[in-house]
Amino acid sequence: MPRVLVDGQSRDQVSVLDRGLGYGDGLFETIRFVEGKAPLWPRHMERLVEGCRRLGLPAPNPAVLLSEACAVVQQLAQAVVRITLTRGAGARGYKPPTGPQPTRIVAAFEAPPPDPVAQADGIRLRLCATRLASQPLLAGIKHLNRLEQVLARAEWDDPAITEGLLCDAGGLVISATAANLFVVAGGVLATPRLDYCGVAGVARAQVLAFCPHAQVREMPLAELRRANELFLSSSVRGILPVREFGGHDYVVGPLTRALQAHWRALGF
Amino acid sequence: MPRVLVDGQSRDQVSVLDRGLGYGDGLFETIRFVEGKAPLWPRHMERLVEGCRRLGLPAPNPAVLLSEACAVVQQLAQAVVRITLTRGAGARGYKPPTGPQPTRIVAAFEAPPPDPVAQADGIRLRLCATRLASQPLLAGIKHLNRLEQVLARAEWDDPAITEGLLCDAGGLVISATAANLFVVAGGVLATPRLDYCGVAGVARAQVLAFCPHAQVREMPLAELRRANELFLSSSVRGILPVREFGGHDYVVGPLTRALQAHWRALGF
Repeated sequence: MPRVLVDGQSRDQVSVLDRGLGYGDGLFETIRFVEGKAPLWPRHMERLVEGCRRLGLPAPNPAVLLSEACAVVQQLAQAVVRITLTRGAGARGYKPPTGPQPTRIVAAFEAPPPDPVAQADGIRLRLCATRLASQPLLAGIKHLNRLEQVLARAEWDDPAITEGLLCDAGGLVISATAANLFVVAGGVLATPRLDYCGVAGVARAQVLAFCPHAQVREMPLAELRRANELFLSSSVRGILPVREFGGHDYVVGPLTRALQAHWRALGF
Repeated sequence: MPRVLVDGQSRDQVSVLDRGLGYGDGLFETIRFVEGKAPLWPRHMERLVEGCRRLGLPAPNPAVLLSEACAVVQQLAQAVVRITLTRGAGARGYKPPTGPQPTRIVAAFEAPPPDPVAQADGIRLRLCATRLASQPLLAGIKHLNRLEQVLARAEWDDPAITEGLLCDAGGLVISATAANLFVVAGGVLATPRLDYCGVAGVARAQVLAFCPHAQVREMPLAELRRANELFLSSSVRGILPVREFGGHDYVVGPLTRALQAHWRALGF
């Protein structure tokens, strides 16, 4: 069992009446900590606050969250903190309570072990049959309605394949199941728009800040074959080069390497 | 606090690691009990089993669920039982565990008080701005990813308006936030297809079984103005005539009355 605080108390249970459980009515963040520090913390808080605004949840106090996250990661040099924020308990029914008392869950997990081969040589990516639905009201934020990702991740069990690529119903590329996607073609970096589906990753935001000329746009699947570099961004796993997708091999190129160096410079 | 059993034990909490909370990875049913009996029980079990098949969850034992439901409704003459079935606790990440141990939550609530005026004269329905996303993998089943319904129900607070009508992105009528919709026009009963979004209600299934010539088809919003009768079906609230929608008044017609009589005959 990881170390967990629920509303600041050392507990590992929540009420069965919690709307997070009942309706997926809430948000989460998974935040990489290294030696007690989270280099992308401000970006996580930014997305969480934006998610609260979109769902009509009272925004949490980031200082409280940081102190709770620091408390649960003690004794873990390499950790992932999951913060879950729900609309709290309420009467049965979809109608949100007028004065919601959000539930705040802060849990520390051991970080996944480093994978130097994946970092050096890249990972294998597959195309998922699951398509992401178009829902502009929920696109971009990291809400708790994640059945699409669960179904997509259940499509394969081969440990040699690290991630699955998700398209929308129209065949536009959106993201991996738990990471965002970038392509480099003709020296130009690009990543899919996430106005209708997908999660706007914190690592993606960091890449875009580091590469201000990157394009954020519609990306047909066919474009991936023409790419010179392909990589995933993840707040937990960092910059993951893709070495194979759909029978096509990619080399790990200079922009991917530069971003990996940037990631190390951030403290990861 | 309602009476609750979690995996057969009298408890009102679940693990923060439960995938129902983490990802909305599960299903639910809300079942009306009258004097300890649930007239639509077999239909609820049918939908729950179909949901398990679609999500790749082990199907529950209906006999266990029935005995737990009967246990929690004791002392409640008029009750709603919510059964929640999740994929259980698991490691962090979307990948479903290979041998999931589902969590089973059976909770009894007092039924909403009877509303004879709504039953006799009908309710007011409004059009929601929230549109339902098209996701055939999840359409029809009663899964835990319900943020669309929460956002739709948050659109209004006027107690004079009982329900909100939801369309898909293309403007086709799908359902109310927590009920299905039927129209009668030219003596023909019809209800929207739910192949791409919406929940295939248990009360809807009962209406369709009672009226085998009813049409299940695409329904443009404009059709509602031309309808002679409009009603909602809900396993909790029964057959609810609509008396006003979008500035248009409806009379409570003979087919609606016949279905209300059928509902009473079922034991509600």
